[in-house]
Amino acid sequence: MKLLVLGAHSADFVWRSAGVIAKSVEEGAETLVICMSYGERGESGELWKEDPKRSEESVKAIRHEQAQKAADILGTPIRFLDWGDYPMLISNERIEQLTQIIGDFEPTVILTHTAKDPFNPDHPLAYQATERARLLSCGAGVPSAFKNIDPPMWYSFEPHQPEICEFLPDTFVDISSVFEKKLAAMDCMGAQKYLRDYYAELASRRANHARRISGQKDVKYAEAFQSHVPRVVKSLF
Amino acid sequence: MKLLVLGAHSADFVWRSAGVIAKSVEEGAETLVICMSYGERGESGELWKEDPKRSEESVKAIRHEQAQKAADILGTPIRFLDWGDYPMLISNERIEQLTQIIGDFEPTVILTHTAKDPFNPDHPLAYQATERARLLSCGAGVPSAFKNIDPPMWYSFEPHQPEICEFLPDTFVDISSVFEKKLAAMDCMGAQKYLRDYYAELASRRANHARRISGQKDVKYAEAFQSHVPRVVKSLF
Amino acid sequence: MKLLVLGAHSADFVWRSAGVIAKSVEEGAETLVICMSYGERGESGELWKEDPKRSEESVKAIRHEQAQKAADILGTPIRFLDWGDYPMLISNERIEQLTQIIGDFEPTVILTHTAKDPFNPDHPLAYQATERARLLSCGAGVPSAFKNIDPPMWYSFEPHQPEICEFLPDTFVDISSVFEKKLAAMDCMGAQKYLRDYYAELASRRANHARRISGQKDVKYAEAFQSHVPRVVKSLF
Amino acid sequence: MKLLVLGAHSADFVWRSAGVIAKSVEEGAETLVICMSYGERGESGELWKEDPKRSEESVKAIRHEQAQKAADILGTPIRFLDWGDYPMLISNERIEQLTQIIGDFEPTVILTHTAKDPFNPDHPLAYQATERARLLSCGAGVPSAFKNIDPPMWYSFEPHQPEICEFLPDTFVDISSVFEKKLAAMDCMGAQKYLRDYYAELASRRANHARRISGQKDVKYAEAFQSHVPRVVKSLF
Amino acid sequence: MKLLVLGAHSADFVWRSAGVIAKSVEEGAETLVICMSYGERGESGELWKEDPKRSEESVKAIRHEQAQKAADILGTPIRFLDWGDYPMLISNERIEQLTQIIGDFEPTVILTHTAKDPFNPDHPLAYQATERARLLSCGAGVPSAFKNIDPPMWYSFEPHQPEICEFLPDTFVDISSVFEKKLAAMDCMGAQKYLRDYYAELASRRANHARRISGQKDVKYAEAFQSHVPRVVKSLF
Amino acid sequence: MKLLVLGAHSADFVWRSAGVIAKSVEEGAETLVICMSYGERGESGELWKEDPKRSEESVKAIRHEQAQKAADILGTPIRFLDWGDYPMLISNERIEQLTQIIGDFEPTVILTHTAKDPFNPDHPLAYQATERARLLSCGAGVPSAFKNIDPPMWYSFEPHQPEICEFLPDTFVDISSVFEKKLAAMDCMGAQKYLRDYYAELASRRANHARRISGQKDVKYAEAFQSHVPRVVKSLF
Repeated sequence: MKLLVLGAHSADFVWRSAGVIAKSVEEGAETLVICMSYGERGESGELWKEDPKRSEESVKAIRHEQAQKAADILGTPIRFLDWGDYPMLISNERIEQLTQIIGDFEPTVILTHTAKDPFNPDHPLAYQATERARLLSCGAGVPSAFKNIDPPMWYSFEPHQPEICEFLPDTFVDISSVFEKKLAAMDCMGAQKYLRDYYAELASRRANHARRISGQKDVKYAEAFQSHVPRVVKSLF
Repeated sequence: MKLLVLGAHSADFVWRSAGVIAKSVEEGAETLVICMSYGERGESGELWKEDPKRSEESVKAIRHEQAQKAADILGTPIRFLDWGDYPMLISNERIEQLTQIIGDFEPTVILTHTAKDPFNPDHPLAYQATERARLLSCGAGVPSAFKNIDPPMWYSFEPHQPEICEFLPDTFVDISSVFEKKLAAMDCMGAQKYLRDYYAELASRRANHARRISGQKDVKYAEAFQSHVPRVVKSLF
Repeated sequence: MKLLVLGAHSADFVWRSAGVIAKSVEEGAETLVICMSYGERGESGELWKEDPKRSEESVKAIRHEQAQKAADILGTPIRFLDWGDYPMLISNERIEQLTQIIGDFEPTVILTHTAKDPFNPDHPLAYQATERARLLSCGAGVPSAFKNIDPPMWYSFEPHQPEICEFLPDTFVDISSVFEKKLAAMDCMGAQKYLRDYYAELASRRANHARRISGQKDVKYAEAFQSHVPRVVKSLF
Repeated sequence: MKLLVLGAHSADFVWRSAGVIAKSVEEGAETLVICMSYGERGESGELWKEDPKRSEESVKAIRHEQAQKAADILGTPIRFLDWGDYPMLISNERIEQLTQIIGDFEPTVILTHTAKDPFNPDHPLAYQATERARLLSCGAGVPSAFKNIDPPMWYSFEPHQPEICEFLPDTFVDISSVFEKKLAAMDCMGAQKYLRDYYAELASRRANHARRISGQKDVKYAEAFQSHVPRVVKSLF
Repeated sequence: MKLLVLGAHSADFVWRSAGVIAKSVEEGAETLVICMSYGERGESGELWKEDPKRSEESVKAIRHEQAQKAADILGTPIRFLDWGDYPMLISNERIEQLTQIIGDFEPTVILTHTAKDPFNPDHPLAYQATERARLLSCGAGVPSAFKNIDPPMWYSFEPHQPEICEFLPDTFVDISSVFEKKLAAMDCMGAQKYLRDYYAELASRRANHARRISGQKDVKYAEAFQSHVPRVVKSLF
Repeated sequence: MKLLVLGAHSADFVWRSAGVIAKSVEEGAETLVICMSYGERGESGELWKEDPKRSEESVKAIRHEQAQKAADILGTPIRFLDWGDYPMLISNERIEQLTQIIGDFEPTVILTHTAKDPFNPDHPLAYQATERARLLSCGAGVPSAFKNIDPPMWYSFEPHQPEICEFLPDTFVDISSVFEKKLAAMDCMGAQKYLRDYYAELASRRANHARRISGQKDVKYAEAFQSHVPRVVKSLF
């Protein structure tokens, strides 16, 4: 059980998957969060509002600290690639770097952004980079000239505006038991405080959906995901 | 754990889901197979070839016996609704009958046909009847004027020509441990013998896909399914 | 400016479009709400919980009164067709009745349910009935043997679980100025009180989306709709 | 080579497929046109404009004569089912009637309407009836209790507003050599004269597309179709 | 009210949106046309036919003059980026240049090509460049390290072969009052004269559709567009 | 009649289209196979298993020889571009090289991979490169600054896992008469022997589908393809 979370900006893993990360840690899974950038230019609104003249480096330092603190609360290691944002640029070298990370970690499950987002330029690039690096780390599933890992399951986590990102959730995870940790992790993200209530409420709304879908009345908070490859199971139950 | 399989004709449950039925029985689940018709007019080719003048009643009797024998091998109860085939006709009364069956059995999982089949007139009708009866048996999930069950998970099993039926498998079930039973059940279906090799080979092909998708090298035989509602889970692993 | 709202159950118009109704009344539009059923069997949870033995007629009477009160708050006429729910059944006569209503009212805009809803048996039927009655009331747009109205614009309002109903909102209406009326109308629907907070929060969430999409910072509450036919306009602005 | 054209109203076969019918006759194919209704109520605008008080029977008689004349020009037999229009209603008996017609004629190719038409109530019904009758006439392709024909190829012809009917043409037929016949057939349809120029121009536009797609510079007029089942061919050329 | 039109080649804005440009000027909107290339290699057929040996520079000069003249007739400023065609190549620098242009102009509405075009290599690239530059100019809608504009509405204009470009028009604009200007602008494009009749007729066909959709009988000429983001409105009327 | 087959790796043309190639040669068509890479790193499992320490050059030499032998059996010329695999990288120069090849060969039909493949990183790139080079070799179909060929028909051949590659076959080619040659060509591909049975069985399965679709009972083996542009034909038969 190994969970790899790949976010374009340093706060993405918190809003979109803090619950599942904490849940996985609780279950004894190994987890790793990768932040491709700090979101220093485009997603640090409150820091720039406080002081429009501050340096990008200072924004990055604050964002690093916040994300590290949130990761600590969730109990997960975290790495920062510092690729820059708005625009994030993807090169063959960066794909290779990501392939290496995936090959080394050998995740069972990967979480990342959606393929489409008409209100964010970096999220679809993060998706594309993840999609390609995942393929390159797996190879064709036969002996080859390079290390091959078993193909990880692969999901998109929930974007800010699901419908116009063509996000179709097919998997709801009950995060009730770790919801306090998600709240605490969100509290660390000073730079994007206005999102905290939004995503707390979302967890409650998705739980309402999960209860209606399944009849499981004890789901109080949930996160939603969309899988990109079929499941292989031993049983339908 | 309760599995309900709804087939338009009396042989459908064997070709499309005998593996999962046997697997579920093995796991201790309660199972029930419903045959909406005997497929007496349109899907009993070898019987009509033997004797084009035989009566529909005699075809039905043979088909009943074959399906019962296959069900016995798999270890599952089976019921025949005798709705007629080619054309199968759906009425409000038949929807009510199906709603009653679903409400009484309270399945966790329902399996049925695909919504589209450009080479079979009865399969899409069986899908529509199942879709509607499932909804009516669940209600809105609140106290109401009638009995309400928890919404069952709901899958299409694999049609004969997957792509033109818009079948997109998202769940592969490993049936290696019960494959001998599926073979034995298929051997009972004298009326459609030519399909036996076709579906044995399909189980092997779907296992090839399942191995590639997951890296699980011990999957020798598999059946493929497409879910129609999201999953609600406690963990992503 | 004439708005026709067609709901399967007597509370649907409140949760899904009370804001737009009140807004339209405010703008001087003529409005009409049609409730195809009272939702007496499947959507009156709290009434049945209070007293599982009460009669359907008594549930209908209470639902009638609640819906009438909500309509009065919004300032709109309302009509009840009493078609029954769970199951709602559509016949040629009911299509004709609906065609007559549309032909008489001559709406500019029609609002109704989504074509798909995997957790409600009546909503898709209401959609189909509306779709067909709208077509029959318009004819081919040429002189004919019956009265022809200009084709109304036609939208789906937001279902409870948007993504799995394949709801893709393309029109967000700012209801900030009438939000108090929507709250007051929702307060009337005693039978489904648990939905009040859910839909108040939804209006706030959709406003967040609307602000991000458009940059219009004064949108505090919004309702979302999906159009089914193209718009014909004098200007792109 | 046998072509069966199934139109909801008595003029549909002319606007949408007169070219292919004339071409098929020219090639020596056997053809048959079925008019499910006369389009007497909804599609006889100019007749009703002339005299709003005339009887439906008199409109039908004129429409019959016009369609017969057009069919004579194209060289094809034609049959009228007189099912009524606006609304057309489909019953099990009518499906059976259509199944009989298809089974008797044994077409190689069937042409009919599109599955969706947000501006015509009868066209989608004609599509559904054709879809179901075609399936019932073919059976499962094995000996059975009833006559089985080989599954005909099956296309939608072009609707009035292609995009909003979700019409995606995949087959353009060069009708240059018979275009004069299409013009002459269209001239017979007095009741819908305003469509004549529209469809003449369409043939020229579709030829422009066909030339660009294929480089075949001699295509002057074309009709467009969308197939619903795959082709089986001896060669890709 | 600010309209920005982004065309891959210097004639695209005329065929696809001259009506809306003239209409917008008439309404008092500020407009700007950007020609990414002159279409000098691939879309200047008549110039190359006249003299296959002429230089690309001379073709560009003629195309510049023609487009300038058409822009003058419509009353709009125009800029030429001279990026080259067949192939057009997109680089990070060009994306930045486009981002700058959008950020400086601050459009309310952007028009460009479709995402797909199986018969033109440059149109989809122009779409992608526009999509990305629009996102980069808007940011996440919060204070940031760079200038942020409000997200413009964003449409595709009509391609030459709508269906195979997956163009689904959802907005028809009545251009009757400025149609003479569109004709005059098209007359300037000597290099592609054969398209003039094609697009004049298209305006008439789209008006036919617009009349049928809306019942607005005075629409004589129209242009069709497909929106890519939802609308936010104060009223449904 | 000219057939161009573009495969990402040196064995792709055999598994996916050997039948159609042999059939085309038989019919007198000119054929050309292009192998973009040898598949030396990712698709030479048995060679690397034999000797994990062998050099990539030696793998390439063996793969070259095998593919050449298979091409000889089918009777087709073959060219190797040696672009490297896992990852294959596409540059403007490589697009130009491919454009040149297409422009020189002037194919009537092109075969290549699918646009999507969630289990292979190189196949979608080969698709994209082919799509773009095909467009650049055709131009806009008017005189231009460069050589223009008529737009070739263009198909995807069948991927290993059709449904998850979104492969929707619309054309089945009967390869019964040349099936022995396909078997012999597959026998040459020592490096991927385990695929031989898989693809022999697939040809038999696709023939089963082709027989059911068309009623053509003599189809024993078939290959399936998906077209990407409409057909322009003289007749529907």
